[in-house]
Amino acid sequence: MTRQVLAIDFGGTKVALGTAAAGATGDRPHATVRLDTRGAEGADQVVERTLAAARELVAEPVAVGVSTFGVVRDGVVRLAPNVPGWDGLPLPRLLAGAFGDTPLSLDNDVNAGAAAELRWGALRGADTALYVNVGTGLSAALVVGGQVLPGANGAAGEIAYLRDTAGAPAFAEHRAPLEEAVSGSALARRGSALLGRPVTAEELFGLYPDPAVAVLLDEALEVLARTVANLSVVLDPQCVVLGGGLMGAAEHIMPRVAEALQRAVPFPPRLAAARFVDDAPLLGALSAALSLAEPERTVRTPP
Amino acid sequence: MTRQVLAIDFGGTKVALGTAAAGATGDRPHATVRLDTRGAEGADQVVERTLAAARELVAEPVAVGVSTFGVVRDGVVRLAPNVPGWDGLPLPRLLAGAFGDTPLSLDNDVNAGAAAELRWGALRGADTALYVNVGTGLSAALVVGGQVLPGANGAAGEIAYLRDTAGAPAFAEHRAPLEEAVSGSALARRGSALLGRPVTAEELFGLYPDPAVAVLLDEALEVLARTVANLSVVLDPQCVVLGGGLMGAAEHIMPRVAEALQRAVPFPPRLAAARFVDDAPLLGALSAALSLAEPERTVRTPP
Repeated sequence: MTRQVLAIDFGGTKVALGTAAAGATGDRPHATVRLDTRGAEGADQVVERTLAAARELVAEPVAVGVSTFGVVRDGVVRLAPNVPGWDGLPLPRLLAGAFGDTPLSLDNDVNAGAAAELRWGALRGADTALYVNVGTGLSAALVVGGQVLPGANGAAGEIAYLRDTAGAPAFAEHRAPLEEAVSGSALARRGSALLGRPVTAEELFGLYPDPAVAVLLDEALEVLARTVANLSVVLDPQCVVLGGGLMGAAEHIMPRVAEALQRAVPFPPRLAAARFVDDAPLLGALSAALSLAEPERTVRTPP
Repeated sequence: MTRQVLAIDFGGTKVALGTAAAGATGDRPHATVRLDTRGAEGADQVVERTLAAARELVAEPVAVGVSTFGVVRDGVVRLAPNVPGWDGLPLPRLLAGAFGDTPLSLDNDVNAGAAAELRWGALRGADTALYVNVGTGLSAALVVGGQVLPGANGAAGEIAYLRDTAGAPAFAEHRAPLEEAVSGSALARRGSALLGRPVTAEELFGLYPDPAVAVLLDEALEVLARTVANLSVVLDPQCVVLGGGLMGAAEHIMPRVAEALQRAVPFPPRLAAARFVDDAPLLGALSAALSLAEPERTVRTPP
């Protein structure tokens, strides 16, 4: 029987699972399952249903890669306020209970997305690079020496908390000022308020000809482009990759960011769109599991 | 005869040279010489006088460490507009001509300062850390895996070019927006304009009781504190070290920065003042030379 690895991505609305043969050269999981997170019903049922689905997929994986929203620190998930019960969830212990001594990697979703791009996508071969994920939320991964940089607490790249004015709200007030200005949820909220009806960020980009919508989007894109340029000034990456659900509007996003990089960064990095969108974290978890199943490779474990 | 290493720090106003015995455990150069840079007379004479002084100090060093303002990239110094002839100077070739096959390390001054703090000072033992130098200019070094991160072009941490508003000037316009807001030269310029007479940044901090001066300084300190907090959000360092000439006003600077870190960073890093001030780059160059003289250590060379 083929040695199989297991990948799990816990997302805010969906949980994805996949398997692949250890040592496989392909870039896609063999079998995938998706479950609704049903966050309102709490974290326990999500984990239980996910572990049951995992057992169905592969009884004895040789390695497991897991990605989650939030940040794993001191044995619990942190910075995950949007799913009840997830903030503070002892996910490492729950996973260890389910998989025993099986080698297991656990990282957050944006770091996993960057790992997928490093192994199979737009970051392949990069030494120093930046991956920015513009989806429902906003976050980034820093790549140094060809590896995703965890930071001292697993929170490197949590750019949702950046502040660009003296009066901006801050993390200590349970706020995420940059994410409140630029993200799928921020655009949906502001667009809905502007138009007086519920609108998604995707729909909003479709309404670009509307002058009031254009003002809103241009302002958000300026902040995004300036932020990516600032991150590039700090890290001096050779390339920057943009991913996440908002990249459906790449035609609007990429030129602004490219212009800001050229204008504001002493050595402007190459800019590229991510290869993977929705399945990036699952593929990143798969990449980590495949690495664990290759004994000659060393793999970073989360702090 | 003892095996000696040589350290040189090219600064905008002074050049410093020092030597130490290879394998020495002490933290200070044995002999130091200081020369005026006399930037207005161009770069060639600075380099010539420095190399002559170096030959006086030690005829045949076993390793040489050099630090310079600016960034060394593609064989020339870049981002060094303030000394005539320095921007574009082929410093690596000039040094190779003088020192032949002697192992040589060349890095910029803030990276060297961080290296000194890593070996002997406030960054000792740090894995992920941030060093911010607030002197005549403003720059930073990122420490990852216990080493200063060069970036893809040797320009990581060149935070002078950060922009925090849509209308801010940019690098492409030969501007350094953040350094124009927060640095010794910025405070001196703005303070002199405010008071109608020449004043240094140091003198300005002495005038804090003056309400107009306090407004100017508070504004600059808010920007500095917010910037250090933002850098900490991005890197997630375990500690932040502040150095540079403005740290003479540490009593005003440190509480503001500490408060911003606590308020805006999910996992606030430890904050400390640098151990070394004026001689940090020379000591960093010395550290690099000592490392080169220890064959078992691996040393990063600038790109």
